[in-house]
Amino acid sequence: MSEPIKFPTPEMPVARKNPAERLLVLAASDMAAVDSLITDRMQSPVGIIPDLAAHLVSAGGKRLRPLLTVASAAMCGYQGQDHHKLAAAVEFIHSATLLHDDVVDESELRRGKRPANKIWGNASSILVGDFLFAGAFNLMVETGSMEALSVLSKASSVIAEGEVKQLAYLRKITVTEADYMDIIRAKTAALFAAATEVAPIIAERSTAERAALRDYGMKIGLAFQLVDDALDYGGMESALGKSVGDDFREGKVTLPVIRAYQQAGHVEKAFWNRVVVEHVQTDTDLETAVSYLRAAGTLQSTLEQARKYADDARQALSIFPKSNLRSTLGDLAGYVVDRIN
Amino acid sequence: MSEPIKFPTPEMPVARKNPAERLLVLAASDMAAVDSLITDRMQSPVGIIPDLAAHLVSAGGKRLRPLLTVASAAMCGYQGQDHHKLAAAVEFIHSATLLHDDVVDESELRRGKRPANKIWGNASSILVGDFLFAGAFNLMVETGSMEALSVLSKASSVIAEGEVKQLAYLRKITVTEADYMDIIRAKTAALFAAATEVAPIIAERSTAERAALRDYGMKIGLAFQLVDDALDYGGMESALGKSVGDDFREGKVTLPVIRAYQQAGHVEKAFWNRVVVEHVQTDTDLETAVSYLRAAGTLQSTLEQARKYADDARQALSIFPKSNLRSTLGDLAGYVVDRIN
Repeated sequence: MSEPIKFPTPEMPVARKNPAERLLVLAASDMAAVDSLITDRMQSPVGIIPDLAAHLVSAGGKRLRPLLTVASAAMCGYQGQDHHKLAAAVEFIHSATLLHDDVVDESELRRGKRPANKIWGNASSILVGDFLFAGAFNLMVETGSMEALSVLSKASSVIAEGEVKQLAYLRKITVTEADYMDIIRAKTAALFAAATEVAPIIAERSTAERAALRDYGMKIGLAFQLVDDALDYGGMESALGKSVGDDFREGKVTLPVIRAYQQAGHVEKAFWNRVVVEHVQTDTDLETAVSYLRAAGTLQSTLEQARKYADDARQALSIFPKSNLRSTLGDLAGYVVDRIN
Repeated sequence: MSEPIKFPTPEMPVARKNPAERLLVLAASDMAAVDSLITDRMQSPVGIIPDLAAHLVSAGGKRLRPLLTVASAAMCGYQGQDHHKLAAAVEFIHSATLLHDDVVDESELRRGKRPANKIWGNASSILVGDFLFAGAFNLMVETGSMEALSVLSKASSVIAEGEVKQLAYLRKITVTEADYMDIIRAKTAALFAAATEVAPIIAERSTAERAALRDYGMKIGLAFQLVDDALDYGGMESALGKSVGDDFREGKVTLPVIRAYQQAGHVEKAFWNRVVVEHVQTDTDLETAVSYLRAAGTLQSTLEQARKYADDARQALSIFPKSNLRSTLGDLAGYVVDRIN
C-alpha cells in the first residue's frame, strides 16, 4: 500500500492544496509532534533498528493514518496530548505490517522500489517489525487508555487474520467478492477504523460519535484499498508506469480481476488461470490483463465502488456540526478516490 | 529454545517427580485453565491459524513460562482469575517469537524437528506469529491491568531488540561476554522476568515483592539460556544426540565458544574463524567444536555460571515466607540447570 499524497510546500497557496494537504496544514503542529514521537521511538542502541525503521517510517512522510487520528481528535474537541501517541502507535502498527508484508510477498520490487527486506534481509525486516509493533503498544500504554488499547489491539488481531486469509486465497482465481471484501476490511480498513475510533475514545465523546468516526475510518479504508487495487493495474490511465503490477505478479486476486473473471469467455478464463493459478507469466501478460480489465469495465466499476464508500465515509461525519474540519475530512474521503486522476 | 521437561503421569508418585512436575501438580487446575484459554484463543475461521498455532503451542505442552506466572500468583496469594490470561499471554508472546525465530534462523531442523515454517512456509509463520502476538495483547487488555500490560509490552520491545542485536552479532567470533549477556538478558530472560513480575502486580503486593519475583524470573531466564547454550553442544554428555548443533550450524556465538576462543591457540582460532566467521563447515566440525569446548572447560564453566544464576533465583525468593510453594519454585531454578544430567 502506498499513498501518493503530495505534501504542501510553504509557497503553495492553501486554496490550491488537495484535501490531504489542507488537513496537514490544519494539523501541522499535531503532525510535527507525531513525527517527533515516531523518530524518538525508533531509536535503539542496536543500529539496524533506527536505520531500517527510518527507511520505512520517516522516508516519504506518508502519514495518512496518523493524520486521521489527530484530525478526528480535533473534531472531537480533544484538548490533551495522548492523540499524538495513539497516532504514532497507528503508524508503527502500519509500518510493522508493511515490513512483514514485504517478506511475505517475496517481491523484488514494491511500487518500483526495493523493499526493506531486499536491502537489510528478511530477518531484520521481521524483527524490526516486531520491535515497531511492541513500540506501538508501549505508546498506547503511556496514554493510560485501556479502551483505546483494546481497539488497536483487536485491530491488530484482525489485520493478521486478514493477511493470513489473503495468503490462503493467493492464486485462487475463484475467490468470491464477499471473501475479497472480508480480506480488505480486515487487512486494510480495520486499522483506518481504529485510527479514527481512538480519537472519540480519549476525548470521551458519545457512543454515537465513536461509532460515526469508526464508520468514517472503515469506509475510507475500504475506498483506499479498492483504489489501490485498481491503481495496481494503472487505474484509468492509458500508460502503465513502473509502479504497477505488484498484485498481478504475486498472484493476488483483487476486485477488478474477480469481476472480470466472472464475465470472462474461454480465452480470458484460460489466460487468468495460467497467470494466476498456474502462476506462469510472460512480459506482455500484465498489458493483456489490463486490456481485459478495461474491456470488462471492472477497473471502472471498482473505482465506482470506492467512490460509494467515500460517499458513505463523508456521510458518516454528518453527526458532527458543520465545520471547516468536517468538510475537509469529508473531502479527504473523496480525494482518496480522486488521487488516481 | 526448548524445555525438555517431562510431564507427570497420574501413576507417578509425587516424591519422584522433579520440581517442574511438582509445580505442575500444585498448579494443575490453574494450568488446565491456561491451556483451555490458549486453545480457545488460537481459534479462527482462517484454518491455517489454528493448525499452525496448534503445532507450536499445544504440541508438546511445554509451558514453563506460564507455569511461572501462575505459581508466582499463588505465592502472592492472588485470588482472582486474571493470572490465567496473563499466563496465556506470556505463552503467546513466547510462541510468536519462536515462529519468527524459525524464519529468521533459516534452519532446516530445530532440535532435530522440522520447524513450522518448513511445513507451512515463511509467510504463514510470520503472520500467525503476528496473530498470536496481537492475541497476547487482547488477553492482557481483558485483565484491565495497565501495569501488567506495561511490563509485558516493554518486555516485547526488549525481546525484539535483543533478537536484532543477536542478528547483528551472528558469525562474529569476537563478540564480548558483556554483549552476549546483554543479548540473552533481552531475548530470553526479559520474558521470564515479566512472566513472574505480573503476578505480584495483579495481586497488588509490595514493590519489594514485585522486585523479588522479577529478579527470580530474570535469573531463572539467564540460567535457562546458559544451559540451553551448553546443551546445544551436548552439555556434559559424551554422546551427541541429533538435537544438538543448531547454534553451531547457524553461526551463533554463545558463551562456551566466546570463552574457548579467548584462550584458543592458532589452530583453534583458525578453526573457529572458518566455521563461524567464514561459515564454512564440514560434517565432522561439530565434533571438533565440542572437543575444543570440553578441552577448554567452557561447557563446564557456562553451566557453573548457570548454577550461580539459579542460586541467585532461589535467593531472590527469600523475601517470601517459607512454604512448600516457595521451596518448589526455588528447586525449579536448580532443576533448570540440572535437567542436563
